[in-house]
Amino acid sequence: MQLGVCYYPEHWPESMWSDDARRMAELGITHVRIAEFAWSRMEPRAGVYDWAWLDRAIDTLASAGLKIVLGTPTASPPKWLVDAMPDILPVRADGTTMHYGSRRHYDMSSEAYRRECVRITEAMVRRYGAHPAVIAWQTDNELACHDTVPSYSKAASMRFRAWLARRYETIGQLNERWGNVFWSMEYASFDAIELPHLTPTDLNPTHLLDFRRFMSDEVASFHREQVDVLRQYAPHADMLHNFMGLFTTFDHYRFASNGSIDIAAWDSYPIARTEVIALDEDDKARYARTGHPDVSAFDHDRYRGIGKGRFWVMEQEAGPVNWAPWNPVPAPGMVRLWAYEAFAHGAELVSYFRWRQAPFAQEQMHSGLNLPDNTLSPGGREVMRVAREIAQSDTLCQLAKGTRAPVALVFDYETQWIFEIQRHAKGFDYQTLAFEYYRTLREMALDVDIVSAGCDLSGYALVVVPGLAVLPPDFVAKIAQSDAQWVIGPRTGSKTSDFSIPAQLPPGTLQSVLPAKVVEVDSLRPTLKPAATLDGVIGIALHWREHLEASDQVEVLAHFDDHWPAVIAKDNVRYAAAWFDAPLHRALLEGAARAAGLAVTHLPQGMRVRRRGDVTFAFNFGPHTADAPAPADARFVLGERTLATADACAWIAS
Amino acid sequence: MQLGVCYYPEHWPESMWSDDARRMAELGITHVRIAEFAWSRMEPRAGVYDWAWLDRAIDTLASAGLKIVLGTPTASPPKWLVDAMPDILPVRADGTTMHYGSRRHYDMSSEAYRRECVRITEAMVRRYGAHPAVIAWQTDNELACHDTVPSYSKAASMRFRAWLARRYETIGQLNERWGNVFWSMEYASFDAIELPHLTPTDLNPTHLLDFRRFMSDEVASFHREQVDVLRQYAPHADMLHNFMGLFTTFDHYRFASNGSIDIAAWDSYPIARTEVIALDEDDKARYARTGHPDVSAFDHDRYRGIGKGRFWVMEQEAGPVNWAPWNPVPAPGMVRLWAYEAFAHGAELVSYFRWRQAPFAQEQMHSGLNLPDNTLSPGGREVMRVAREIAQSDTLCQLAKGTRAPVALVFDYETQWIFEIQRHAKGFDYQTLAFEYYRTLREMALDVDIVSAGCDLSGYALVVVPGLAVLPPDFVAKIAQSDAQWVIGPRTGSKTSDFSIPAQLPPGTLQSVLPAKVVEVDSLRPTLKPAATLDGVIGIALHWREHLEASDQVEVLAHFDDHWPAVIAKDNVRYAAAWFDAPLHRALLEGAARAAGLAVTHLPQGMRVRRRGDVTFAFNFGPHTADAPAPADARFVLGERTLATADACAWIAS
Amino acid sequence: MQLGVCYYPEHWPESMWSDDARRMAELGITHVRIAEFAWSRMEPRAGVYDWAWLDRAIDTLASAGLKIVLGTPTASPPKWLVDAMPDILPVRADGTTMHYGSRRHYDMSSEAYRRECVRITEAMVRRYGAHPAVIAWQTDNELACHDTVPSYSKAASMRFRAWLARRYETIGQLNERWGNVFWSMEYASFDAIELPHLTPTDLNPTHLLDFRRFMSDEVASFHREQVDVLRQYAPHADMLHNFMGLFTTFDHYRFASNGSIDIAAWDSYPIARTEVIALDEDDKARYARTGHPDVSAFDHDRYRGIGKGRFWVMEQEAGPVNWAPWNPVPAPGMVRLWAYEAFAHGAELVSYFRWRQAPFAQEQMHSGLNLPDNTLSPGGREVMRVAREIAQSDTLCQLAKGTRAPVALVFDYETQWIFEIQRHAKGFDYQTLAFEYYRTLREMALDVDIVSAGCDLSGYALVVVPGLAVLPPDFVAKIAQSDAQWVIGPRTGSKTSDFSIPAQLPPGTLQSVLPAKVVEVDSLRPTLKPAATLDGVIGIALHWREHLEASDQVEVLAHFDDHWPAVIAKDNVRYAAAWFDAPLHRALLEGAARAAGLAVTHLPQGMRVRRRGDVTFAFNFGPHTADAPAPADARFVLGERTLATADACAWIAS
Repeated sequence: MQLGVCYYPEHWPESMWSDDARRMAELGITHVRIAEFAWSRMEPRAGVYDWAWLDRAIDTLASAGLKIVLGTPTASPPKWLVDAMPDILPVRADGTTMHYGSRRHYDMSSEAYRRECVRITEAMVRRYGAHPAVIAWQTDNELACHDTVPSYSKAASMRFRAWLARRYETIGQLNERWGNVFWSMEYASFDAIELPHLTPTDLNPTHLLDFRRFMSDEVASFHREQVDVLRQYAPHADMLHNFMGLFTTFDHYRFASNGSIDIAAWDSYPIARTEVIALDEDDKARYARTGHPDVSAFDHDRYRGIGKGRFWVMEQEAGPVNWAPWNPVPAPGMVRLWAYEAFAHGAELVSYFRWRQAPFAQEQMHSGLNLPDNTLSPGGREVMRVAREIAQSDTLCQLAKGTRAPVALVFDYETQWIFEIQRHAKGFDYQTLAFEYYRTLREMALDVDIVSAGCDLSGYALVVVPGLAVLPPDFVAKIAQSDAQWVIGPRTGSKTSDFSIPAQLPPGTLQSVLPAKVVEVDSLRPTLKPAATLDGVIGIALHWREHLEASDQVEVLAHFDDHWPAVIAKDNVRYAAAWFDAPLHRALLEGAARAAGLAVTHLPQGMRVRRRGDVTFAFNFGPHTADAPAPADARFVLGERTLATADACAWIAS
Repeated sequence: MQLGVCYYPEHWPESMWSDDARRMAELGITHVRIAEFAWSRMEPRAGVYDWAWLDRAIDTLASAGLKIVLGTPTASPPKWLVDAMPDILPVRADGTTMHYGSRRHYDMSSEAYRRECVRITEAMVRRYGAHPAVIAWQTDNELACHDTVPSYSKAASMRFRAWLARRYETIGQLNERWGNVFWSMEYASFDAIELPHLTPTDLNPTHLLDFRRFMSDEVASFHREQVDVLRQYAPHADMLHNFMGLFTTFDHYRFASNGSIDIAAWDSYPIARTEVIALDEDDKARYARTGHPDVSAFDHDRYRGIGKGRFWVMEQEAGPVNWAPWNPVPAPGMVRLWAYEAFAHGAELVSYFRWRQAPFAQEQMHSGLNLPDNTLSPGGREVMRVAREIAQSDTLCQLAKGTRAPVALVFDYETQWIFEIQRHAKGFDYQTLAFEYYRTLREMALDVDIVSAGCDLSGYALVVVPGLAVLPPDFVAKIAQSDAQWVIGPRTGSKTSDFSIPAQLPPGTLQSVLPAKVVEVDSLRPTLKPAATLDGVIGIALHWREHLEASDQVEVLAHFDDHWPAVIAKDNVRYAAAWFDAPLHRALLEGAARAAGLAVTHLPQGMRVRRRGDVTFAFNFGPHTADAPAPADARFVLGERTLATADACAWIAS
Repeated sequence: MQLGVCYYPEHWPESMWSDDARRMAELGITHVRIAEFAWSRMEPRAGVYDWAWLDRAIDTLASAGLKIVLGTPTASPPKWLVDAMPDILPVRADGTTMHYGSRRHYDMSSEAYRRECVRITEAMVRRYGAHPAVIAWQTDNELACHDTVPSYSKAASMRFRAWLARRYETIGQLNERWGNVFWSMEYASFDAIELPHLTPTDLNPTHLLDFRRFMSDEVASFHREQVDVLRQYAPHADMLHNFMGLFTTFDHYRFASNGSIDIAAWDSYPIARTEVIALDEDDKARYARTGHPDVSAFDHDRYRGIGKGRFWVMEQEAGPVNWAPWNPVPAPGMVRLWAYEAFAHGAELVSYFRWRQAPFAQEQMHSGLNLPDNTLSPGGREVMRVAREIAQSDTLCQLAKGTRAPVALVFDYETQWIFEIQRHAKGFDYQTLAFEYYRTLREMALDVDIVSAGCDLSGYALVVVPGLAVLPPDFVAKIAQSDAQWVIGPRTGSKTSDFSIPAQLPPGTLQSVLPAKVVEVDSLRPTLKPAATLDGVIGIALHWREHLEASDQVEVLAHFDDHWPAVIAKDNVRYAAAWFDAPLHRALLEGAARAAGLAVTHLPQGMRVRRRGDVTFAFNFGPHTADAPAPADARFVLGERTLATADACAWIAS
């Protein structure tokens, strides 16, 4: 359990640096991230490098005993570079070339810009790769943020055609697999294929899906080009990138594959995130000052999987941010709570954004650990408390690495893209459905691993698949061979990898373990509320319902009021024929969890628990004081049983 | 009463074709529409035609006894054509050139593209014009759909100037009639006139109206060019185009004039249409699985008039579609009901979209008569039932052609454009007002003909004019000479054909039969609700109210609570000074109907009846079971008196 | 108290002119504004002037004894000019060049267009500058309307760079003061700076603010170039421009400085303005037919200050307008009320838009004093009544010029721009906050002067500063030396003039009189409602709350329920730590007013009073009849004590 901070020495008079470093160390901070965004200071003019200031900054921080994470500055190419290469600017879906004047003003498909990025990265790592204090490197910053991916540039068009040619080999193959006979969409060559935008009506969905896949690969290869040169000169440092919350523009599992990262780091802004995601208004109101209880946890559990067990919070809000429609002050205690929450979910490091609020430029209303007048902010004072609590507790200092959770939740980025391309029901959002399943499991006090469809799923007691559009070739075999309980959500197996309906109808190959087929799809406006009862619990379908024709081998656990099946099961597999409301999701998952032999706890509203090794943490995000579900004889290693809003505790069962 | 289907042989392996044809015929289908959208298969490269597959497809279908409707493929020019002539792409109002990648990616004003369309049409009709099974030709597909009309291209600009020069002869005439002295808008020549878009504030309304007129003429002439060549080589075939529901981009009466079509065919998607039109939320909820009871009937009655008595449903949904925000499954029975509804309103043919759901490409979530696995869909099973019911009933097999209805409702496309250009009250939509009048008449069990303002209106007992912005020169004379009861809606006579306020003030020339003038217009925000009482019924004005100063010769049938007249009358003419709510519209029309000697029936909510010859049909779109208003001794030729939701019956009065 | 009218002789047959002039004079009209928008008639072709018609129009009006305001026609360059100089067209933020076809189709930064404007202005004033009836000149029309400012043209880019070079002298200064080290935004030269638009994410706020300042200066210099030539040839005429209501695109105080105008004229459309501003829905409904009671008064009081005591209403609605979403008919009496309201607030002239409703072109649904059939409109009849009432009353004929009000409200255009650039809380709008303070004062029957932060504030009993982002250098000294009561709103002193947070934290230099600092900012979603009690009144914070740490010298007058201060005070200065709801604003301002020794009257809802000399006017905008707060022995010089909706009265205290 270590603490870090993001710092921008170039923003401050050099006279402040050593005092800053000293105060960081005193506060209990061990890691400091610097240098991302500082290209115009490293290379003020083309080819003219200025490393002196960065040498001094690194040495000053290292002298205070701080470990340094160096960021490559490629998220903000300087003006001279843009003026020399105006083609590197990204192009929006409406055809508009974006301008210089903020950040991320580059096109990831620009080969000229990629060469510049490798050049500046190599220059940096040749200078600092061997510095003993530089223990990790971050590429760029929040890749694909601000809707700069996809870019609809000429460069993207060229590379997309090449990508398609590699995927399909012949244009005939592409025409066949995209179904281009439809609407006379047949192409004579790969060079005839346009980027998918600005058409009078719907584009071919496979065209769109391949473009999403291509763009995801572009993000991964952009990062990888930097990592390759970084590893050459900094072979012992950890490689990472700071990902974002609830962000699905690229496939993070593919991004992280083949050793492209050592640690999955991510940037956690729970209050602003709660404001902007698709929660119902009651939840937004209830958790406006705490963030939704699952909004960080979901990504902690997801990035822990992406990092194969190693994850950091690279940027953690320590007070109000500047970018949501509203940016309320967190409830007192939340900055402390978020730190323990991250550690409970397995984080190695929680690093704050930022050391001191900058009084100038775009983020002047973004808080930091210090106010612009260099006194500790309210959030900064909470971080100081966390550092002291950890320092005073042997248990907290030496937490075990996380163990496998009893429950796996399968998350799939391609499924997100497929249902964005073809929602069919306004409001159907795959990640939101996955979040609903996750929330339900967490309200039952279950620990969850979020995993990819391709990973090893053995060893879990319960596997939850909230909807997996394309079933990987071996996936149904895994189910057939599994002893776990499986809960499968709607739209699973509804598409082939070429974005067609499977020949045997959905759920496709799943029919071999669950012989039923979808004969009609009922896309539900909010006033249509088919009701069903499961284990005595009454609820309704939202957004989406399937009309299932099931074989006699299948048991119908619940029917809708018009007699279509709502939940069916065979052996250890349950299938939900609809997006359910919270009560039905709870009944569905509770039934499966009990069948899997898992203990289910009914937590108070807004309470969450998470185990790490033999320590169990509890967090109260709710509006009311409540008791943590610790056994009577628990030994508290942090706080106490009764938790006010925004309070946290931890115990070891005696 | 015949059934048809839309079929895309090019989408399926040729090995399936003969079985498809056989099963169509077995199902009771007599007509099959093919080939629209198949340009890339007819002409894979410029000038290289491939007719062999289409020869075989036509012969296979003809061999099964099916009659064939051939569509020209001009809605989807292939990529090689677009690459050779990029100027044919349409241009949006914001100046963006649209891209290839879906359909309708062409500019109707492109003379180069028009030549290509005539060329492919001529090639098709030279090959198939004499084929005995090809009994009708459809041009293009849903002309002007997807907002590709208007196009703001260079070609459109050139042709608009020429159109203006023909209309006005001199630029001085144009300046005078547009009122271009206003804001120094005077032009020195026709070549100085721009397309009306992208201006800092309001454009001259006559400029906008003429552009709408021009674009409407472009659609008609685009179609006509194809029809001219088709008639040359297929002189005995019926010519048609598949129009859309509630679609007002062009003037269908002008389009259909001078023999441009033999049959008015249209595409009926009642559930999705109900979702997207401006109904109040209660109606959308109530009819989510049946479609609004009038949403198809309105266009059946309108297209019957446009087709001078002959109309087809070219595409009828047989289950969920893919293009609305939500696409619920129709209530069981609705697919059957819609067929009888179309026949009751006079349709010769109901043709389903489509034979089999395609598992690939854009419309994969659009249902058909068969599922992708080639079993009958739920909708397909209902169509089978319809075919059998008809086959088993001599009465249903031999329904009379429709007779003139007792009520005419005048619909005018120019009025729609005029009030779109100058709503003056947000929410004022002319077609919606016409729909409200129509709905009210239909709830009173009256049969309605929807007709143009220029047609012969003699012989009707009641003529309803929901608002006719520009009174045609002879229109008031028709009223003066008429024995019918007339109900005239607000904004009638409010404009000259040059989009000015008439010199004598609105309602313009109508003052000769109804001496009153509009001295002020009250544009009503939703919170302003002037109330009035008519025949004991209390209601309010919505959107729009006129302050009328009426002569003593005029009777004020109802006053608003601030004493302005709400309904005035003289002799057989009633005038509504406002857009009323449903109760007042009912009182207004019921009073007029009774004065016209028409029997008024109070139908249960969601029930509708329609007479064809001596057969009366009844349809229950409502949520509750109810009895059809058949006489006690009626002889039922379809179903029975008591109708559950989505059920239909028909009887002959004994 | 004089009446005027806007007239377009070019819109009407010359045969009507003399009768129009005669009827104007008979109605009591003394001033007529003409000629703006008539460029295409003054100069039908480049360099070919036609003054004959205008000579006759001016002579006809002058012969009837009317005084003439001549407008320069530069708001509507003719088509021949645009065709000759297409670069003068304005460019929208999205990069689209706007088209000819309405008005204001020019770019204020175009030097070519500026030369054309000076040329036509000089030609006009050389011809009419010495005409004895031409007593005033108006430049252009509603400068910056229709979002044509800012323009993102090449010309704007060039002039912006030059403006920056003048402001900062060196690019190093600019980089430093903008904080361009952030995100590598450093520029090597002024020529590298782009216009601030179309960036992937937030622009530097100082970049944006300087662009607003630059564009404001462009508007002022565009006007000034015309005034300079006008004064040369018409040295005795009054110079004016017709400003708009609640319009903040440019700094009207800077615009009006250095003798650029003699009179502040503005265009008052209270009903449409009420519809489009950010009022709550209840107020919009309540005042739909009267306009909000403060919507005109606010600008009367603001423009009186801008005109240094001299202001006109150049355009006053006399009935429904055509440009709001809904345009209801005003309540009978309102046209009369608005005239007296303007006079009560100090107007010299109320001029109506327009003499006669034009039946053609864009504004055909905009009412005038006459209907298109040349009979007086309902509004025209009310104006006739006003003219007679004034003529019959010596008191009303000879009202004193206004005296200084007891209350000053400081309004600042830059503050508006700063909080638009950085709302931080969705819904935070500075002008709306200023309006709330103003409304509260007016409900207490206090007369208010709206003044700039730079003006002399001595002599006021109460100074209200609703929020002043950047404190001018001498502002706090003014407070320190003042005997007045001061009420300071949130966000005051929150920025330096370079758009940074002040080093000592907000409220910056105000800390010298009010030692407290803002340590955190709480941006409030609507569900967050911190409550506070002030003087027994309970209310809540909306949008924005500051966490204040105050020194012991400061008194906390009210606390929020979580103990943060809500209102603090020291000596004669009160500071509101939040945007309050109406009850708390009332308590705050009432407390300060009483401390200032001002009498506070509780007016009935919708009632307002205003004093001019020894005459007090009262106006009832509310839905209910109510008594004006006149003393028992008041001598009524207009109307009587009891006021129905839309009625006005005036009295002198005996």
